[in-house]
Amino acid sequence: MKKLFIGSLLIAITSVPAIAASAFSDGKDAIEYRQNAFQLIRHNTGDIGDMLQGKVKFDQARLQRRADALVGLSTLPWEAFTVAGANQASGDAKAEIWTDSADFQTKSEKFAAAAKALQAAAQTADQAKIKAAFMDFRGNCKACHDKYKAD
Amino acid sequence: MKKLFIGSLLIAITSVPAIAASAFSDGKDAIEYRQNAFQLIRHNTGDIGDMLQGKVKFDQARLQRRADALVGLSTLPWEAFTVAGANQASGDAKAEIWTDSADFQTKSEKFAAAAKALQAAAQTADQAKIKAAFMDFRGNCKACHDKYKAD
Repeated sequence: MKKLFIGSLLIAITSVPAIAASAFSDGKDAIEYRQNAFQLIRHNTGDIGDMLQGKVKFDQARLQRRADALVGLSTLPWEAFTVAGANQASGDAKAEIWTDSADFQTKSEKFAAAAKALQAAAQTADQAKIKAAFMDFRGNCKACHDKYKAD
Repeated sequence: MKKLFIGSLLIAITSVPAIAASAFSDGKDAIEYRQNAFQLIRHNTGDIGDMLQGKVKFDQARLQRRADALVGLSTLPWEAFTVAGANQASGDAKAEIWTDSADFQTKSEKFAAAAKALQAAAQTADQAKIKAAFMDFRGNCKACHDKYKAD
């Protein structure tokens, strides 16, 4: 049982080589980095939601700017989970991020892909398409939060 | 003299129409947004600097990822200076941002353009080109900080 657990840890560590080549000064620095990125993602997502729900006036140029921002931002937080110490002192990051890191990485990549699809939809004038892409994007937020975020 | 001052304020307010169509819940929200963006910019910039100075191993893929991030991030903070209340309670934002807003906007656009030039240079294997583009990018940070950041 113990051997199996150590084996899982080794798989977890070795399955994220692409994002391990990162430089944060320490775990705290990495935690701040990903929290900053998530705050910006939340704001841009929220503003699109407000527009699609009619809480603020629909403005396609603004929606495109938000979707453009999300394409870049959706790629940023993930490396900041791979630094030594980055799995500590972060209130709402669950341990499963590190024990199921291959799935976590897959979900992060699906999230970034959904942001690109949203960007493509935002370039059309078709609000049904935009709404469908936004629902899928939000679904990818939720899929990861449900499993990996304690809130 | 008073009339001239009011005139300048009106110019300041009317000269940023493109970024005024934004939704932050309040000034505090906007200040947090731009501070989050600047922190991410600082990290990505710092990591490129460390690589070019040999403090960490040069890795072109990583440098490209940093430059890609900066292209997106360099467009984000500016709308967050235009919200009512966003010029308050922010320790290091100088009043000149709002009294010289046309120049502030010009400098922000030059900064974003310098990030794009850095991204283009990062796609070459030419370290001299990369260094030159990075120096120009850093110069654009400094030009704005010198005038508009109290630190």
